[in-house]
Parts: sequence; C-alpha cells; structure tokens
Amino acid sequence: MGSRKNILYLFDVDGTLTKPRQRISEELKTFLLNEVKTRVKVGLVSGSDYSKIVEQMDGEEITNQFDYVFCENGVVQYQQGQLKSTESILNYIGEQTLQRVINFALGYMSQLELPSKRGNFVEFRSSMLNICPVGRSCSQSEREEFSKFDMQHGIRAKFVEALQNEFKDSKLTFALGGQISVDVFPTGWDKTYCLTHVADEKFTEIHFFGDKTTIGGNDYEIYNDDRTIGHKVTSPEDTKEQLKKWLNIE
Amino acid sequence: MGSRKNILYLFDVDGTLTKPRQRISEELKTFLLNEVKTRVKVGLVSGSDYSKIVEQMDGEEITNQFDYVFCENGVVQYQQGQLKSTESILNYIGEQTLQRVINFALGYMSQLELPSKRGNFVEFRSSMLNICPVGRSCSQSEREEFSKFDMQHGIRAKFVEALQNEFKDSKLTFALGGQISVDVFPTGWDKTYCLTHVADEKFTEIHFFGDKTTIGGNDYEIYNDDRTIGHKVTSPEDTKEQLKKWLNIE
Ligand SMILES: [Mg+2]
Ligand SMILES: [Mg+2]
Ligand SMILES: [Mg+2]
Ligand SMILES: [Mg+2]
Repeated sequence: MGSRKNILYLFDVDGTLTKPRQRISEELKTFLLNEVKTRVKVGLVSGSDYSKIVEQMDGEEITNQFDYVFCENGVVQYQQGQLKSTESILNYIGEQTLQRVINFALGYMSQLELPSKRGNFVEFRSSMLNICPVGRSCSQSEREEFSKFDMQHGIRAKFVEALQNEFKDSKLTFALGGQISVDVFPTGWDKTYCLTHVADEKFTEIHFFGDKTTIGGNDYEIYNDDRTIGHKVTSPEDTKEQLKKWLNIE
Repeated sequence: MGSRKNILYLFDVDGTLTKPRQRISEELKTFLLNEVKTRVKVGLVSGSDYSKIVEQMDGEEITNQFDYVFCENGVVQYQQGQLKSTESILNYIGEQTLQRVINFALGYMSQLELPSKRGNFVEFRSSMLNICPVGRSCSQSEREEFSKFDMQHGIRAKFVEALQNEFKDSKLTFALGGQISVDVFPTGWDKTYCLTHVADEKFTEIHFFGDKTTIGGNDYEIYNDDRTIGHKVTSPEDTKEQLKKWLNIE
C-alpha cells in the first residue's frame, strides 16, 4: 500500500455503496478493495451505528478493511474493528438539557393522533436522539402510511419548528431524519464531524461520495464543505462509474 | 415417548430454569431432557418473546425440544421452532384505545424528572405495552439508580394508579413489571393465558414451577390457578431438587 496517494475517498453507505436499506453487492465490494483501496485511502461515513454499517457492508471483514469507519457521522470511530474514539450527546449537553428535550418531545407526541402509534418513540444514540411520532417499531406498511400522512399534514415539520422555538438558545440542531423521524443532535455534528479526525493526516484531497447532497439531506454539509471535493451519486452503480472516471480505472 | 404420562410440567424461565437474566446451565439442560422429558410432557411459559427465551435457554435446539413454548405468556406460541398461534393487544383493544393509552403514558412521563432518562420509553409487544420511565436503553448503573429512586419516590406505583384511574372502564390491567417498567396488558393475559392452549389435551395434572409466585409477581395467577399444581422455587438448583422429589428421580 506504500504506493497509495495521500488522498482520501470517503463514502456514505446507504444509497451510495448499497441500495437503500440493503447490503452491498459482491461486485462493488471487490471493486472497492481491489481497484480503489489500492490507489487511495478509503473511509466510510454514515449516520448509522457500527452494527448497522457492518450489516449493510456485509460483515466485519470487509468493513474493517476500510482505513476509516466513521459511525454516527464520526462521533463514534472504529479502526480494524476496534472502537477508536467516541463522544456523546449526553456528555455534550448534559443530563438536564437532555431531559428537557426528551420531556418536551414526549409531551408534544402525547398530543398527536396518527393513523397508528406503536413503540420506541425516542431512540437514544451516542450522537443524537431519534424521535419518531409513529414509533420505530412500526411495520413497513405502518411506516409508509405514516409517511403519507406526514406529507399531507406536516406532522414532523411542525414538530421540528416547535422544538426549534422551544430550544432556540441551545447548541442543538433539529431536523427531519429519514422517512419517519426527527433527529436531534449538537449543531455541527453532521458528517463534517468526521473531518476533524483526519485533519492531522493532511490529505492533499478528500473526496466525498453521497446520495443525499441537497439541503436537508444528511450529506449536504460534508458535500458542500470546503475541505472536500463532493460527488453526488444516484445509486451504487453510479458510484462505481464515477470512481472509474476519477481514478482512471479501465 | 409413548410411555410418558399424560402429565404436563410447565416452567417459568427466568429465575426458575436460569439465574436472573442469565443462561440455563448445561447440567439442568441435560437433566430436563434426559430425566424429566422422558417421564412427562414439558413446556416453557415466559413473559419474554421467543428470541429472548431462546437466548436464555441457550439456543433453538434445546428450546424446540420442549413440547410447548409459550412466549409472552402464551399469547405467542411456538412448536418445533414454528410460530403456532398468536394474538395481539392491538387486535384486542383496537388502535383508538391503544393510542389513548400511549398518549396518556407519554404525557405522564413528560412531567417526570428523574436521575436519568434515555430512550425507548414505550416498547410495543404482541401481548403488552412495556412502559419505562427511565427508558429501556439505560445502562445497568442507570437502571439501578432509577430502581433506587423509584423505591424512594414510588414513581411507578403512582404511574400505575394514574393509569388505572384513567382507564378504569377498559379491559386492561396495569402492573409493575420487572425492575424499571409498568406493564399494560389485557386483563387475563397473565401466564394463565397459556392454559387455554392445552385445555383439549385433558392432562391429568398440570404442574407449574415459578419463582415469582406472590401477589404482584408474574407467576402469581398461574401458580394459584385451580387448573395447576403450583411449585414455588427459589433458584434453578431448587427447581431441580423439587423435580427429583416429585418425579422420584434418584
Ligand atoms: Mg445515503
Ligand atoms: Mg465540498
Ligand atoms: Mg421468573
Ligand atoms: Mg394452582
């Protein structure tokens, strides 16, 4: 690997290396390891936790061959299967503010009548709170039903607005997350967070590939960051094509 | 197995066949299969779901050798690893009542300030809602801290009382669950529920072994039910000793 250039290629996972919520293909796996990793350093950066990344990347063996694995936007960092560093929203904002946010969210959700409500309305992660009015344990059809209802009634948009109003002086960002959730995280803990971990490496170029690069998407900030060269992709196949072009692979 | 008597031995899992929250020992496993199952029919009845039972019983292979596996008190029934029957609280009380209960619980919890609050305050299962003021994703030390706080301040007892008042005309039971939760389930969906599944077998005796047989414990109803001969045990070792005595095993 001594011949690899001092360049980093960073990849979003879901929608970029895999189809949404699916596993990476054998073909792309082989291509990344044999053609890309031999030329440049490679890293993953996802909003998901380590176990979810490993699942989508089809196992720990392949995951651990990436030079960097940034979980939860880099708030949790793995290298060769070992936890290398971690921060937490609890540590950052403290128990009191955390409880104020949780209690406000519980109170707000207690007023909502929806097509269905199930369980797990608040998911606590290292880097964020994921708040879900329908409950994350809903079925696929209940998820879709809520999503449709949300588009008609702006349930989540109004929820985000209420949270922003209530906590306008906090260091927290409130945003739509995925199809059914509201994400709460410290301002700046988007995917650009991971870039602080590689600052010392002084890469001559950092390329980022992601599918959700427009405003409100979870790749928006890192894609537009001055420290990266951003590539918008539409599918894993598109990612491969763009990699071939940029790295001059026949 | 033709020589087995038409007698059923039913076992609670946690605290009865295993130490609390641990796995069954090799010794007890062997004893149950070689000495007990050869003499009578055997069944498991637990408040947990199938995957949790399999975990505590140390795998599917052993679990599936029991003649009956009653998950969630029998609301979900497995036989030879296959789902045999299932009912659900949603089906039973309907979406509207379910949401009234969930919303009341969310609103109530939004008023609580505790030593810590994490995530997963409402867990939705086939047979019940598990409501947890500290959040089920708390750490072990946070769990213990809440439990201590709860004993001092009666957080859960007051919560149960409020739920009972609000839903006094419903077909629901509200009760303390485990160390940190409040359980909500249709009245009668305690462990006696599983007995309806074996009524047709006309067993001459149904023995039940459990560790939480006093009032408020999750073995109380089945232990005291007229259809069973109840055995109170204090540990897996005690279960084995009582089995030896009752089955005349040297
Ligand atoms: Mg993506
Ligand atoms: Mg950029
Ligand atoms: Mg027990
Ligand atoms: Mg009895």
